[in-house]
Amino acid sequence: MAKKPKLRKPILIEGLPGVGNVGRVAAGYLIYELKAKKFATLYSPDFLPLVVLQPDSLVHMLNMEFYLYKGKTRDIVILTGDSQSITPHGHYEVCGEVIKLCQELKIKEIITLGGFASGKSPEKPRVVGAVSSPELIEKYKKYDIDFSGKHNIGTIVGASGLLLGLGRAEDIDGLCLMGETVGFPFLLTDPKAAEAVLRIVTKIIGVKVNMVRLEKSVKEMEKSIKKTEEIHRKMLSQIIGKKQQKTQTQYIG
Amino acid sequence: MAKKPKLRKPILIEGLPGVGNVGRVAAGYLIYELKAKKFATLYSPDFLPLVVLQPDSLVHMLNMEFYLYKGKTRDIVILTGDSQSITPHGHYEVCGEVIKLCQELKIKEIITLGGFASGKSPEKPRVVGAVSSPELIEKYKKYDIDFSGKHNIGTIVGASGLLLGLGRAEDIDGLCLMGETVGFPFLLTDPKAAEAVLRIVTKIIGVKVNMVRLEKSVKEMEKSIKKTEEIHRKMLSQIIGKKQQKTQTQYIG
Amino acid sequence: MAKKPKLRKPILIEGLPGVGNVGRVAAGYLIYELKAKKFATLYSPDFLPLVVLQPDSLVHMLNMEFYLYKGKTRDIVILTGDSQSITPHGHYEVCGEVIKLCQELKIKEIITLGGFASGKSPEKPRVVGAVSSPELIEKYKKYDIDFSGKHNIGTIVGASGLLLGLGRAEDIDGLCLMGETVGFPFLLTDPKAAEAVLRIVTKIIGVKVNMVRLEKSVKEMEKSIKKTEEIHRKMLSQIIGKKQQKTQTQYIG
Amino acid sequence: MAKKPKLRKPILIEGLPGVGNVGRVAAGYLIYELKAKKFATLYSPDFLPLVVLQPDSLVHMLNMEFYLYKGKTRDIVILTGDSQSITPHGHYEVCGEVIKLCQELKIKEIITLGGFASGKSPEKPRVVGAVSSPELIEKYKKYDIDFSGKHNIGTIVGASGLLLGLGRAEDIDGLCLMGETVGFPFLLTDPKAAEAVLRIVTKIIGVKVNMVRLEKSVKEMEKSIKKTEEIHRKMLSQIIGKKQQKTQTQYIG
Repeated sequence: MAKKPKLRKPILIEGLPGVGNVGRVAAGYLIYELKAKKFATLYSPDFLPLVVLQPDSLVHMLNMEFYLYKGKTRDIVILTGDSQSITPHGHYEVCGEVIKLCQELKIKEIITLGGFASGKSPEKPRVVGAVSSPELIEKYKKYDIDFSGKHNIGTIVGASGLLLGLGRAEDIDGLCLMGETVGFPFLLTDPKAAEAVLRIVTKIIGVKVNMVRLEKSVKEMEKSIKKTEEIHRKMLSQIIGKKQQKTQTQYIG
Repeated sequence: MAKKPKLRKPILIEGLPGVGNVGRVAAGYLIYELKAKKFATLYSPDFLPLVVLQPDSLVHMLNMEFYLYKGKTRDIVILTGDSQSITPHGHYEVCGEVIKLCQELKIKEIITLGGFASGKSPEKPRVVGAVSSPELIEKYKKYDIDFSGKHNIGTIVGASGLLLGLGRAEDIDGLCLMGETVGFPFLLTDPKAAEAVLRIVTKIIGVKVNMVRLEKSVKEMEKSIKKTEEIHRKMLSQIIGKKQQKTQTQYIG
Repeated sequence: MAKKPKLRKPILIEGLPGVGNVGRVAAGYLIYELKAKKFATLYSPDFLPLVVLQPDSLVHMLNMEFYLYKGKTRDIVILTGDSQSITPHGHYEVCGEVIKLCQELKIKEIITLGGFASGKSPEKPRVVGAVSSPELIEKYKKYDIDFSGKHNIGTIVGASGLLLGLGRAEDIDGLCLMGETVGFPFLLTDPKAAEAVLRIVTKIIGVKVNMVRLEKSVKEMEKSIKKTEEIHRKMLSQIIGKKQQKTQTQYIG
Repeated sequence: MAKKPKLRKPILIEGLPGVGNVGRVAAGYLIYELKAKKFATLYSPDFLPLVVLQPDSLVHMLNMEFYLYKGKTRDIVILTGDSQSITPHGHYEVCGEVIKLCQELKIKEIITLGGFASGKSPEKPRVVGAVSSPELIEKYKKYDIDFSGKHNIGTIVGASGLLLGLGRAEDIDGLCLMGETVGFPFLLTDPKAAEAVLRIVTKIIGVKVNMVRLEKSVKEMEKSIKKTEEIHRKMLSQIIGKKQQKTQTQYIG
C-alpha cells in the first residue's frame, strides 16, 4: 500500500475462494462493475509456496488484493484474492492482518461473502446471514437475508468467519452472507449463488450493478477461475493431504 | 480481562472438552450452580480457524473462558471453553498463557478435571487422581480419590496434564481428577462421570452444589454440547486427519 | 559468509533438487566447469532434521551453497544445494533469505533452473521460460526459450518460482528456465534436460562450457546424487507422508 | 540450571530414545554407574503435549536432562531424556539449545550415542562411527570403531546427527557412535548394542564402568522403559500419523 487512502464511512466487502466460488465471483464482479482500483496487496508465507504460471509466461504470486470504490456517500473496500491460508494458524495471521488494515482505514463494518452447500440447486438460492452481534440482525433483516437459523451450517471456516470473530473484538460490525449452492464438486463456480449474494450486498452498500453481465463475465473469467480451481484442488490435496478436500466441502468463506 | 480481580486464596478449576466431556460438563455445572461470573477470555491462533454459527445467527469465536466465584473463605476461578489447541506446540502456548494468568492472580493451586476411558460404565465411577508433587497425595487422600496407580492411564494429554507440569515449575500445586467413563464414542457426554468428579472437587473447595439438577442440566446443555461435539469430531478428523480421532480416545483433558 | 564480496553486475543462477534433477545438475556442472568458489552457506530449521552420513564417515548438514565465478564482464553467483524446505512456510523463509542476500550483493537479475514433466522424453527437450515482468520476454526471446504458453505447467513450486515472485517486489528481474523431462520417477536425473537448460543459460550469461563432459560428469555424480535422491524420496514420504511424493511429481524447482 | 558449573575440559555424551534404545540405555547406565548428578533440565514446546502418569500418581513432564560427573582429569556432561522433538523444526530448536549450553559450559567435544538397524542380531555388535571433521577419524580410530563406511546408514536423524552438524559451526568436535541392532520392533531395547557402545565411550572418556550390572539394570529399567516406549509408539503413531513409525525404523539418534 503506497499510501493510506482517506475514506468516508468505509465498509469492507470480502470475497475469497471457497465453496461454489461464491464469494470470489461476487467480489470479482463487484470490482469489475464498479471499476474499483487496487490499492493494496497482501502476501503471506501461509499461502501455497508456489507461483502460478500464466499463459503470457508471466509468473503470479498468490496474494490477496484490496480494491477501492469511492461511492457517493461512502467508500467501499473490496478484498479478494486467489488464496486463503493453507494452515489453521495462518488463517488467524492473515485475518489478523486484514483487521489491522481495517483499523488503519477506520473501517467499522465488514460484510463477508461466501456460499454454503445445501446439496440442492434451487432456482432462487437462499442467502443465509450470520452476524457478529445481536443488534445487527435488526439492522440487516430488511434485506432478503435468512436469519431463521434453519440450515445445516454449523461453522464458518476461514476468512469469512474469522473476520467477523476477530473484528468484533475491535468493535467492527460483521455480517456474513452465504449463498445456497450444491456444493459438489467443491470449487465448481456457481454464478447463480453469487448473483443472489450480490443482489443483497449491493442494496446494503447502495450501489447499482448490472446483473445481466454476471453470467457472461463468469464465462469470461472461467479460464482463469478454472486454473485457480485446479491449482487449489491439486495442491491442497497434495500438500495438506486428501483430508483437506473434505474440509473444503464445508468451507463457507 | 478488563481489570485484574483481587482474590483471596484463589484456586483454579479447569474443565475443557475431552473424553466423556467430563471436565467440561463438571466445570460448566459448577459455573451454573455457583453463578460464577466470566471475567476473562482467551483466544488462540492454535484453535480451529473457524467460528461457530449459533441458531440465533450469531457467530461465536472458539475460546477459553475464566469465571470467578467469590466463596466464603476463598475465591474459585473456573476455566472452561469449547476448544483446546489443535497443534502440539499450541497446547504448550495456551497452557503457558493460563499459567501466566495464574501467576498474575496469585493462584497457587490448580485442580484439572477430566475423564479416563476404562471401557466400562460402572454404577459408581472411580475418580483417579494425579498430582504434581508427592506431598499432595497426603493432602488430598482424605477425599475419595484413587491414588492406587491401578488403572490403564499412561499419559494425560492436553491442558489437564500440561497445567500440572507447567504449574509445578512456578510452585503451583496441581491435582488432576479423572472420572471413569466408557470412552467410546470419544466425545459422548457422560454426566455420571462428571458427577463423580464434581462430588470430590466441591468437597475440596468447600462449596455445596445440588447434584439433582446435573443430569437435567446436561439434557438442557445437550443441544449446544452436541453441536460442539460434532464440530470437534468433524473438524479434527478433517484438518488434522483421522489419526487425531484415535488420539482422542486416550484424551484425558 | 566470511565477508561480502564486491561484484560487478552480478546475476544469480539457482539450481536446486527437483523434477529430473535438472536445476541441480545444471548448476552443479556450471560450478564444476567454471571452477566457481563457494563463498556462503545457508542452513535452515526448515530442512530435514538429519545429517547425511558420507562414505568417508563424515556427516554433512543439509544446506544451500552460494558459489562465485568472476567472469570477464560480469560476476556469476550460483546457488545450489541438497535440499529445499520441507514445509510450505519454510519455502517462503528460505527464499526470503536468498532474496536478502541478493540485495546485499546488489544482484538485480535471477535465473532459476528446473525441469518440467511432459511425460515425453524427446531427443531435443524444449526449454519453457517464465518471467517476473512482461518486458523480460522481449529481453530473453532471442535465446531458444519457449514463451508460447503451450505446455501443461500450471504452477512453479518452491525456490524456482518463489525467487521470481519475491524478487519482483525488490525490483529483481527473474527468468525461470524449465527443461522438458519425462518426470517419472520424480527424481530420476535427466542430463539431457539439464544440457538443454545449460545451453541457454550459458549463452545468456556469456560463458563457455564444454557440454561433452556433462554426461560423463553426471555419471560421476551419480552416486552422490543417488544418495540424495534416496534420502529425499524416503524422508519426504515418511516425514511429510506419501502425499508429498505426489506433490513432487509436479515440482519444477 | 541453578548456576553454571565450572568444568575442566568438559565433554558432552548424548543418549536419547531411538532405535534399540541404545543411546538412552547407554547414557542412563553411565549416569547410574558414575553417580552423575543432574544439574539442568530442558523443556520444549516441541515435545509431545502431555505428561506421563507414574505409578506413584505423580505426573512427569517430558524433558531432557543434563548430568555431571566430575572425573579425575576431565568433567563429563551426560544428556539424556525421555523425548526428542516431534517436529522437524523442533529438532533444530532443541539441538540449537543444547549447543548453546555447550558453548556456555565451554564444551569442545560431543559424543552422541545411538543404534543402527542392520536387521541382524550379532553376538558382537559392530559400532559404526561418524565424525564432524576429517581429522577426528585419526583421533578416534584407535578405539574399536568402524569407520569403513561399509554399512547401510544413509542419514542420522535427530539429535545424534544434528548436534554434530550444528556443533561443527561452533568448532565443537563431534563423534557419533552407533551400535548395531536388529532394529525391529523399533523401540525394543537392545542392551547388547548399548554395551558395545558403552565399552568404547568409556575408553574414550577414561572412566571405568562395571558392565556386569548393565543387563540387570536394563531389566530393572524395563518397566519405566516400557512405559516410555509405549507412549512414544502410541503417541507418535497418532499425533504425527503412521508414517512417523516408519521414519523411526531408520532413526539413529
